[in-house]
Amino acid sequence: MRMYDLIEKKKNGGSLTKEEIGFMVEGFTKGIIPDYQMSAMLMAICFTGMNETETLELTLAMKDSGDTLDLSKINGIKVDKHSTGGVGDKTSLVLTPMVAALGVPVAKMSGRGLGHTGGTIDKLECFPGFCTALPEEKFITNVNEIGVAIAGQTANLAPADKKLYALRDVTATVAQKSLIASSIMSKKLAAGSDAIVLDVKTGNGAFMKEEADAVALAETMVKIGNMAGKKTAAIITDMEQPLGNAVGNSVEVIEALDALRGEGPEDLMEVVYALGTQMLLFAEITDDRTKAEKLLKETIASGSALKKFAEFVEAQGGNQEDVLTQGRLPVAEKKFFAKAKKDGFVTDILAEQIGNACMILGGGRETKESVIDLSVGIRLTKKIGDAVKCGDVLAQIYANDESRGKEAVAMVENAYRYGTEKPVDRSMVKKIITE
Amino acid sequence: MRMYDLIEKKKNGGSLTKEEIGFMVEGFTKGIIPDYQMSAMLMAICFTGMNETETLELTLAMKDSGDTLDLSKINGIKVDKHSTGGVGDKTSLVLTPMVAALGVPVAKMSGRGLGHTGGTIDKLECFPGFCTALPEEKFITNVNEIGVAIAGQTANLAPADKKLYALRDVTATVAQKSLIASSIMSKKLAAGSDAIVLDVKTGNGAFMKEEADAVALAETMVKIGNMAGKKTAAIITDMEQPLGNAVGNSVEVIEALDALRGEGPEDLMEVVYALGTQMLLFAEITDDRTKAEKLLKETIASGSALKKFAEFVEAQGGNQEDVLTQGRLPVAEKKFFAKAKKDGFVTDILAEQIGNACMILGGGRETKESVIDLSVGIRLTKKIGDAVKCGDVLAQIYANDESRGKEAVAMVENAYRYGTEKPVDRSMVKKIITE
Repeated sequence: MRMYDLIEKKKNGGSLTKEEIGFMVEGFTKGIIPDYQMSAMLMAICFTGMNETETLELTLAMKDSGDTLDLSKINGIKVDKHSTGGVGDKTSLVLTPMVAALGVPVAKMSGRGLGHTGGTIDKLECFPGFCTALPEEKFITNVNEIGVAIAGQTANLAPADKKLYALRDVTATVAQKSLIASSIMSKKLAAGSDAIVLDVKTGNGAFMKEEADAVALAETMVKIGNMAGKKTAAIITDMEQPLGNAVGNSVEVIEALDALRGEGPEDLMEVVYALGTQMLLFAEITDDRTKAEKLLKETIASGSALKKFAEFVEAQGGNQEDVLTQGRLPVAEKKFFAKAKKDGFVTDILAEQIGNACMILGGGRETKESVIDLSVGIRLTKKIGDAVKCGDVLAQIYANDESRGKEAVAMVENAYRYGTEKPVDRSMVKKIITE
Repeated sequence: MRMYDLIEKKKNGGSLTKEEIGFMVEGFTKGIIPDYQMSAMLMAICFTGMNETETLELTLAMKDSGDTLDLSKINGIKVDKHSTGGVGDKTSLVLTPMVAALGVPVAKMSGRGLGHTGGTIDKLECFPGFCTALPEEKFITNVNEIGVAIAGQTANLAPADKKLYALRDVTATVAQKSLIASSIMSKKLAAGSDAIVLDVKTGNGAFMKEEADAVALAETMVKIGNMAGKKTAAIITDMEQPLGNAVGNSVEVIEALDALRGEGPEDLMEVVYALGTQMLLFAEITDDRTKAEKLLKETIASGSALKKFAEFVEAQGGNQEDVLTQGRLPVAEKKFFAKAKKDGFVTDILAEQIGNACMILGGGRETKESVIDLSVGIRLTKKIGDAVKCGDVLAQIYANDESRGKEAVAMVENAYRYGTEKPVDRSMVKKIITE
């Protein structure tokens, strides 16, 4: 078998067999197939695509390129949750303790933020002493004892995907449905859970700007998951503006804790309930959506979710008081205010630009090696649909540097769009895909 | 400027500017732009194409990536000739002394054979002592004194094309019109002639199997040449069977010498006259096609072309007696005969397979490093349209190795196709493109 022939086949619109995909992924991971052949293949795939079987085989080959987690020592049905990434997305922080409080074991691998999007691992490190590099045994023990553990991705999970992604990133071949789907799903399948709930974001702050593209990606991932023997569902959610009000690390954790106290922003909670409901169904806690949502709400009303979060933080090296007592997390002291430039209704908030403003403050990574400042951030006080008058405060900016703070103010102000009519209320949950 | 953005632009069907193409070619040649980005770009070009301006700019950037020949010290209008490559194509050997005898200065860079196609430089080396590595000064002096010089391509002519071609060759991105056209034309433009006549082959033995593709390629090349300020024409010629009867090195030279003595196969001579006519027009020897063909024929009748060839061989280190006296060139001594397997008319001869049979004999290169045996070859005695009876000799095979000879016999026999009706006579010249 020669890689040349596989490139030619794909260029001509042919379908690669399981054996051909295995040969390609193994050869590339081992460095036998050079980058220049793989990048030609990737570009050909961007034009001629991959069918469902090919996408599944690519996913499985990448999953099998490294370690796979064995979660069989964890009791119960393990449900993983994954978001395609957005701005202000602190969903995992709220959702995880809620479902754990209801008896769903959560054994989650999370990532760090890159570019304008944040990452759960960075946010958890806002708790002094919190450790995200858990040895596998400790990871499993924690889930069995307190119901939840979250760790950074180990180096050898789906190494083929890691290498392939790095190549896609420099050859303009990231945005292809099968390549995105197989990249996400290879890691999810390697992470060993029994079921997977995907939060596929759509809108100006998401990777998939168009809802139709988000739905197509979601359908592909759900099919792959189900074909690979895992119950998989995807929820298409809105990312036309940042989710919730806080964007940053510390400020997002504070918002998540507020949410667990019953003071979460409406849009965030709508997404949390939708994802949580699907997780409870997969975990067989209930088979009724209305009942599931009621159960989730009770974990907040009773305080059981907040308590679970405190236990979880303590179990991974933090101090539970940082969860239970308000005002203990560090927030940058210099405050700036972004203000409305005209009267009207807020019609759009360019989420990506808000994410970039946070990055300018030092709260996001430009490259994987960047060191980030957890204390900086942005708190929006006006969102889509709100009426504003010229000069009204749109957002508070927390900075540690005067000039960066001012730059962020300008970026945030420019991210707002206004109209004379109040825009129609938007539903956060656009579609639920289960097959 | 970032190569990433150029890849993305081309992937989305955009047109690259002169500056962008210059940046890309220079960066790639210098090794600043890595192979993996260039191969992604090449594959994107295979799908979205390049317009005429882009193709011209790519050609010029590759031409300017290395040395360009200055032929201004050669008197008269220099006309270069290039063939896209075929089997049994000894046209240059016949044509060059003919036009030189009529006063057209020929200063030609030629290549070696690769795969199933032969090369002029290899063929000329059949003359003992013949030197194809002429220093530039000697090259120019020879043209001025005897009217013709042929040298191997110097290493630093269009190095960008050399590097790019090597990458295309391993990434299944060879067969794209703009890439082929710019590759050929960058070298032709760097070679410094005033006008260019292209022999674009079409048929089963050619790179362009379909006439429409050959015409499209020819039109692109002619446009590029004219836009670059060189009079350029292309003749689309038939390569549905080997050209002439001989395939190999020594045997092709012998056939070329026979042609200069007035005993050339009809199909070969038709191509020679068509190309030669265009060369005489460009060289302003005459402005009348009929007159041009008459002049060409006279060079054979008078013996002036053969004499010119002898002078040329002598001037580059060979012995003119090898040209003037028949039977002096070495031909392999073991003879084999390919025979017809049935009665009928020959309807097809798979030229590529004949070329491959010659390669099996040792007369062609599998890789650029292969050492070839100049004395082996094939002489077809039956061609398309000939009536044969089962057992008739189709071709003589000259080999230096028994088992290779037998293998070649089988391949040649399998390359013939038969029918019950005599096929319609085919015109060798399908189209002349001058703009």
